[in-house]
Amino acid sequence: MDKLQLDQHISQQYNADLEKLRTQLLEMGGVVEDQVADAVNAIENADGGLAEKVLKTEDEVDRREVELDEACTLILARRQPAASDLRLVLMVAKATRDLERMGDEANKIAKMAIALNDEGESPRGYVELRHLASNVLKLVNTSLDAFARFDVYAAMKVVRDDKDIDREYKSSMRELITYMMEDPRSISRVMNVMWALRALERIGDHARNIAEHVIYLVHGMDVRHISPAEIEKQLEAKL
Amino acid sequence: MDKLQLDQHISQQYNADLEKLRTQLLEMGGVVEDQVADAVNAIENADGGLAEKVLKTEDEVDRREVELDEACTLILARRQPAASDLRLVLMVAKATRDLERMGDEANKIAKMAIALNDEGESPRGYVELRHLASNVLKLVNTSLDAFARFDVYAAMKVVRDDKDIDREYKSSMRELITYMMEDPRSISRVMNVMWALRALERIGDHARNIAEHVIYLVHGMDVRHISPAEIEKQLEAKL
Repeated sequence: MDKLQLDQHISQQYNADLEKLRTQLLEMGGVVEDQVADAVNAIENADGGLAEKVLKTEDEVDRREVELDEACTLILARRQPAASDLRLVLMVAKATRDLERMGDEANKIAKMAIALNDEGESPRGYVELRHLASNVLKLVNTSLDAFARFDVYAAMKVVRDDKDIDREYKSSMRELITYMMEDPRSISRVMNVMWALRALERIGDHARNIAEHVIYLVHGMDVRHISPAEIEKQLEAKL
Repeated sequence: MDKLQLDQHISQQYNADLEKLRTQLLEMGGVVEDQVADAVNAIENADGGLAEKVLKTEDEVDRREVELDEACTLILARRQPAASDLRLVLMVAKATRDLERMGDEANKIAKMAIALNDEGESPRGYVELRHLASNVLKLVNTSLDAFARFDVYAAMKVVRDDKDIDREYKSSMRELITYMMEDPRSISRVMNVMWALRALERIGDHARNIAEHVIYLVHGMDVRHISPAEIEKQLEAKL
């Protein structure tokens, strides 16, 4: 029930086109995942070179987005897909955009790493950053995994875990505001850490979007704007 | 050259379906435009009631997003559109998402208005907020207008003006950091104004996305990740 079969067309070429979409999305996902991990490492280790590497990957991510989008449009025009094939194509088009946005947020983190190198490191906020980053990276990984295996259970885990990330983000922000008040000279440096936290929280949102697309793909259910508990109820009704 | 003709199908129903997509998107745009304007007014006039009204509109915007997305999927499945019809459907699906995100950002501004009511107004930052808000609202309006009239020139104006908004946003943020340093007791209140500025800058990005979708719709050109000057060069080559 939670697996989707792709290899069921008479046209071998059509099968190959759909399978290629899937592979391309996962490849793009891998690139973006590395970008996020590198950007966070660049801040933690004050590694300007690594931050520059992240920024240089932007062109590749943008190129992959445009290519995938064109591939989706081409399949829609040529194959006129229906049912789960149509959902796959639409889902890939949407997830591509989420991945590109994740890459943008990774770039923002890399820019903050460079700013922290220039202005001097922030006295506080690294513990919060490391913790949130590690949870967000897990989320991104699980969301791509959910897509690779069309795994609704993994997708549901992402939707639930993103709520924890939002909570963690909010409490970290409160901590950082306290630091700024205690030491106003650190304001502009702590702000850089805040922007990085904000970018991480956004990356988590995009991972949740991808997970929601997976649920849509497998079950044809639009679960945006619905609470995790409600999604689970609807999924159970499907089984 | 810059106008797109929709009413050219033998099937009256198909024409009506496409025209309805267009109307639905413009209606959703109008709702979101009001949300943004109300959210900004709520901050400026410390109007908690107006902020609550913005938050209450979220459900309507979400519902419209889901409806429009379903309408797009249905047309793809039933009509198997090609060429400019296919571009219209894909463009509407993407623009819908941008509008929903604009609505989310308007909600964030409304929440900041409520926080400022609770914590006490910010001593600084309103001039910057008012100025950015008025420019962003113009941008949103022009982007919807560009879609309503399939007007590439208006779309190009949005793409260019968004660059100015990004610059204005950055300089406002620097101002606000200075205020916080001068008066550390105001930090958490000024932060609320900063988040509102940030949300406005994001709304500007989404307006630019819609403008880019309009260029794609009319000319079939994917102009994301390209500078305004380069887009103009490509457009001239098309004429």
